[in-house]
Amino acid sequence: MSDIEDFEKERDESNKKVLDFSGKIVKRYFNLDFNTYQDGALSKKTKELLGLVSSFVLRCDDCISYHLIECKKQGVTDEELDEALSVGLVVGGTIAIPHLRRAIKTWLELKDNEG
Amino acid sequence: MSDIEDFEKERDESNKKVLDFSGKIVKRYFNLDFNTYQDGALSKKTKELLGLVSSFVLRCDDCISYHLIECKKQGVTDEELDEALSVGLVVGGTIAIPHLRRAIKTWLELKDNEG
Amino acid sequence: MSDIEDFEKERDESNKKVLDFSGKIVKRYFNLDFNTYQDGALSKKTKELLGLVSSFVLRCDDCISYHLIECKKQGVTDEELDEALSVGLVVGGTIAIPHLRRAIKTWLELKDNEG
Amino acid sequence: MSDIEDFEKERDESNKKVLDFSGKIVKRYFNLDFNTYQDGALSKKTKELLGLVSSFVLRCDDCISYHLIECKKQGVTDEELDEALSVGLVVGGTIAIPHLRRAIKTWLELKDNEG
Amino acid sequence: MSDIEDFEKERDESNKKVLDFSGKIVKRYFNLDFNTYQDGALSKKTKELLGLVSSFVLRCDDCISYHLIECKKQGVTDEELDEALSVGLVVGGTIAIPHLRRAIKTWLELKDNEG
Amino acid sequence: MSDIEDFEKERDESNKKVLDFSGKIVKRYFNLDFNTYQDGALSKKTKELLGLVSSFVLRCDDCISYHLIECKKQGVTDEELDEALSVGLVVGGTIAIPHLRRAIKTWLELKDNEG
Repeated sequence: MSDIEDFEKERDESNKKVLDFSGKIVKRYFNLDFNTYQDGALSKKTKELLGLVSSFVLRCDDCISYHLIECKKQGVTDEELDEALSVGLVVGGTIAIPHLRRAIKTWLELKDNEG
Repeated sequence: MSDIEDFEKERDESNKKVLDFSGKIVKRYFNLDFNTYQDGALSKKTKELLGLVSSFVLRCDDCISYHLIECKKQGVTDEELDEALSVGLVVGGTIAIPHLRRAIKTWLELKDNEG
Repeated sequence: MSDIEDFEKERDESNKKVLDFSGKIVKRYFNLDFNTYQDGALSKKTKELLGLVSSFVLRCDDCISYHLIECKKQGVTDEELDEALSVGLVVGGTIAIPHLRRAIKTWLELKDNEG
Repeated sequence: MSDIEDFEKERDESNKKVLDFSGKIVKRYFNLDFNTYQDGALSKKTKELLGLVSSFVLRCDDCISYHLIECKKQGVTDEELDEALSVGLVVGGTIAIPHLRRAIKTWLELKDNEG
Repeated sequence: MSDIEDFEKERDESNKKVLDFSGKIVKRYFNLDFNTYQDGALSKKTKELLGLVSSFVLRCDDCISYHLIECKKQGVTDEELDEALSVGLVVGGTIAIPHLRRAIKTWLELKDNEG
Repeated sequence: MSDIEDFEKERDESNKKVLDFSGKIVKRYFNLDFNTYQDGALSKKTKELLGLVSSFVLRCDDCISYHLIECKKQGVTDEELDEALSVGLVVGGTIAIPHLRRAIKTWLELKDNEG
């Protein structure tokens, strides 16, 4: 199993435990989160890029990995990803560079899995 | 003069003072910042939305105002703005609500100025 | 009208504009936010203290003012407030001191208004 | 040894190294930190919940784990924990969800160890 | 009275109110803060630059103004300030640019007051 | 190979992948980052301390490790490091303590490697 498959499996099992444990506020928030990224006036692809860059400047690796997976599914190209992460890097500063290193590593693995 | 015209005038004069004072690192960074948002694989419009939502989750009012002005110029609609800010709000949490209030106020003023 | 009454009036009008402008994600989030602070296993008073200290370490003045108003309504005493803000200060560091200054100023005004 | 026992052992040894290395500012800060969470106008339990939610919105896993251990010792119930983390999640946004997953995992392990 | 004199007067009065209101944790923290910036293995000048750049990347205008005043007293030159803020800008990203604008404005006023 | 050699090897390989993948914005940013820390009105040593403390208050372990390595090369002493990290801790709060633990661990290993 690849690192990304591990990540997705762990994430699913872990979300299940959170929802088993939690009350209505957390459950409703997870539901709201899901609805936020559906097609609308902006495409799901654009929203995933917005989620990715938000996660990038806030420096959350798990969130970045999640949105990279979704961006890949939405057909984001290498050039588009580079430009989106460039916005994130310039806004967020060099403090985000370790996350850039991990984001590119994840992206290259996503492309390998696809190949 | 409207609040937005005040903001733009103050910002321009103030950037000029920064560039007069600063050495090559700051000057090159300002130049890099400008180049980041030009049309490429992603449109300038999408990049401005990325800049807006990044600024929103990092909670910088001046940065939000700047990107709102640029989004307006790029033809972002009310529905698109609402969906972009919804991503920002859900990612960034209620701590960002005061910035949402100020963002909507600025956006409505931008529409009034246009009218 | 006191600074706090100004703040509350401005906040209410501004929230109204946000809800007029926004779609279902933002509306549902505002509703979720309201429900989060109701009495449950933890009292509303404890939840308002949690909201206050969260806002304090994330350094949002408007959020701090809002939770101070709610804490006052829930009967939080001076000693309780001092101890809650002490947790916030020690966790969040001296970077939060300007917010501490403004928080104490708002609290003293809330007490004056009550007097 | 469980993950939590590992965490506590590593933390103790590591704090010892920090105090061996550091001068008076760090030593006094560690002392101040300890005093902040003692019973007072607010109970130690409430202060640990404040420390937990502060750590949660600032997204520090080690700090979250530490306060979860202390919350368990203070008799915090599942319902109380869920409501405290709900405040943290709503204030801090979905960027904190990976920390919620890890917090619940740690809590469930704390309950297992107790059983 | 200049903006900086206003800032210092307001800050002093406000700190006094905080110390009147607060218990021993806050008082001890203020004392610790004072001791942190005294001459030692590193000069007070270097420590003020460290305080400045920390405040800059954490984006707190009041903290930046305070450390700029102290840097001026310690004989920091324009070139040194530019290089220190350049580190802050590159680490912290364009999100800090509005704070750079305000920092330079304050610095120029500090130089005018001195003239 | 020590943990630090691992870190440096991984970091170099990973930066190479980033630069292979990325377009001109990221490449220019990496170049700007390099130039920021060269000797000037402030010494490289002082700039590395500024980079270290900035990374510390923003809580990025990889960035802290990198600047610790550079500080060691610039002849920073134990006392100087302690005082720099004390500024970081007091500004940034106890939320940074886990990073202090890891920083001291890395520093002690750097000294061992040298011995």
